Amino acid sequence: MEIVLAKSAGFCFGVKRAVNMAFQAAEEDENICSLGPLIHSPQLVERLEAEGISVVNDINAVADQSVIVRSHGITRQEEDYLHQHKLKVVDATCPFVKKAQKYAGLLGAEGYSVVIVGEQEHPEVQGILSYVQNAEVFVAADVETAAQIPLGKRVGLVAQTTQAYENFSSIALKLLERSKELRIFNTICDATSVRQNEARELAGAVDVMLVIGGYNSANTNRLARICREILPHTYHIETANEIFDSWFDGVERVGITAGASTPEWIIREVVAKLGKVQ
Amino acid sequence: MEIVLAKSAGFCFGVKRAVNMAFQAAEEDENICSLGPLIHSPQLVERLEAEGISVVNDINAVADQSVIVRSHGITRQEEDYLHQHKLKVVDATCPFVKKAQKYAGLLGAEGYSVVIVGEQEHPEVQGILSYVQNAEVFVAADVETAAQIPLGKRVGLVAQTTQAYENFSSIALKLLERSKELRIFNTICDATSVRQNEARELAGAVDVMLVIGGYNSANTNRLARICREILPHTYHIETANEIFDSWFDGVERVGITAGASTPEWIIREVVAKLGKVQ
Repeated sequence: MEIVLAKSAGFCFGVKRAVNMAFQAAEEDENICSLGPLIHSPQLVERLEAEGISVVNDINAVADQSVIVRSHGITRQEEDYLHQHKLKVVDATCPFVKKAQKYAGLLGAEGYSVVIVGEQEHPEVQGILSYVQNAEVFVAADVETAAQIPLGKRVGLVAQTTQAYENFSSIALKLLERSKELRIFNTICDATSVRQNEARELAGAVDVMLVIGGYNSANTNRLARICREILPHTYHIETANEIFDSWFDGVERVGITAGASTPEWIIREVVAKLGKVQ
Repeated sequence: MEIVLAKSAGFCFGVKRAVNMAFQAAEEDENICSLGPLIHSPQLVERLEAEGISVVNDINAVADQSVIVRSHGITRQEEDYLHQHKLKVVDATCPFVKKAQKYAGLLGAEGYSVVIVGEQEHPEVQGILSYVQNAEVFVAADVETAAQIPLGKRVGLVAQTTQAYENFSSIALKLLERSKELRIFNTICDATSVRQNEARELAGAVDVMLVIGGYNSANTNRLARICREILPHTYHIETANEIFDSWFDGVERVGITAGASTPEWIIREVVAKLGKVQ
């Protein structure tokens, strides 16, 4: 059985950077926590805990500790809180997420109705949202939602960085129909579309596709959905332990990709396990 | 035979305004010309000439006369020329065209690569184009052209006011693919899309469709194309004289629409002639 691993599988630039910053911070600082799990990988969060980085989900529970801000970023209110309490901050917010926050803020400041493409409950979306001040701001996960938003004549659009481009552009098109001026910042990260396009191509060239990543990772779920549209024999797994040999009966080629928050060692374990499939 | 006349057939707001301004000016001023034909209707231009308004195609040929600026507008250079030569100007530029000129200028001033959706040689496009200063500016008639434009990361988009919305939005979508920021002013005049939608609907409900308007009128040509896609039995005519009875053999319903620069009396003549078809 041939195993084809997507070049773009796994950590993106922002996640790699955040993970490096976290391990580095753990070396320098003993009393440190991350605000929410650093990335959507329970396995990596476990390793970080072993290094002394606890996860704190409620900012009020942070007690005189250093705080790692994860790649998704935080809300402006949380930022203010950390500042007011003079807590030491390791800001591992992805630079691309920072840009989305900045552009959303700029659109709000210039009087646009701001629309963010993404899922309302996604922490990155919550962060971006909070940077829009004194302006109307809406979250649209899909075209149907975008069609219902009560808009002004001047509309500004940004995206949560891991959104699918097709969804983003469909929403842009719907908003163009409904506005006189539409100012769009394409804040989708290239890494995401590169990974998605490679996954799409790979899914069309293999018999079975494995997508590795946290079940709570939006970008991994999206990746699995994209592959499944091309190839129904697509399996979303978190670790090598979830693999069943029977998936590969009569299979000649298996493709592998992984979400932006899937650690390298988990991908290696999956490849190793597949090598042993009879 | 039932005759259905589209509600939106004929003069739009800007043309009605320009024609009224021209007849008014002819009453007040004996030495007056229009820079280019006032609207794309040879029949109306003839009437204006009878009122003493000559057509001057080259601005350098204007000699101490009052000048009517037609609804399409003029270039910034022509505007400057008229100003410098202290000529009396009756500015009948359509207010919607003025907006397109203004937004194109604003986008250029704010450092965007400016794209104008329209035909390069259209006088309105030439006018809009000239208001972009110290910035790159391109004209795209279709998606294929838009795909080739050498763009910066920040792209601004406006449209010649009588463009079809579908073409405009397709070009917007292509430019979104190719830029980081896309700022769109939808400068398409509502009257155009209302007229186009009504024509599309009417063409689907009749056996023969007549589209009345100058052969040199871009918006009339587009209207005829839209109808022909729905109904091959669509005829583009300039006057009632061009109608052949044989077009209506066995026909139960005939639909009529007319371009933005088609005078009311020409539409009436066509309706009258159809009433006499055996």
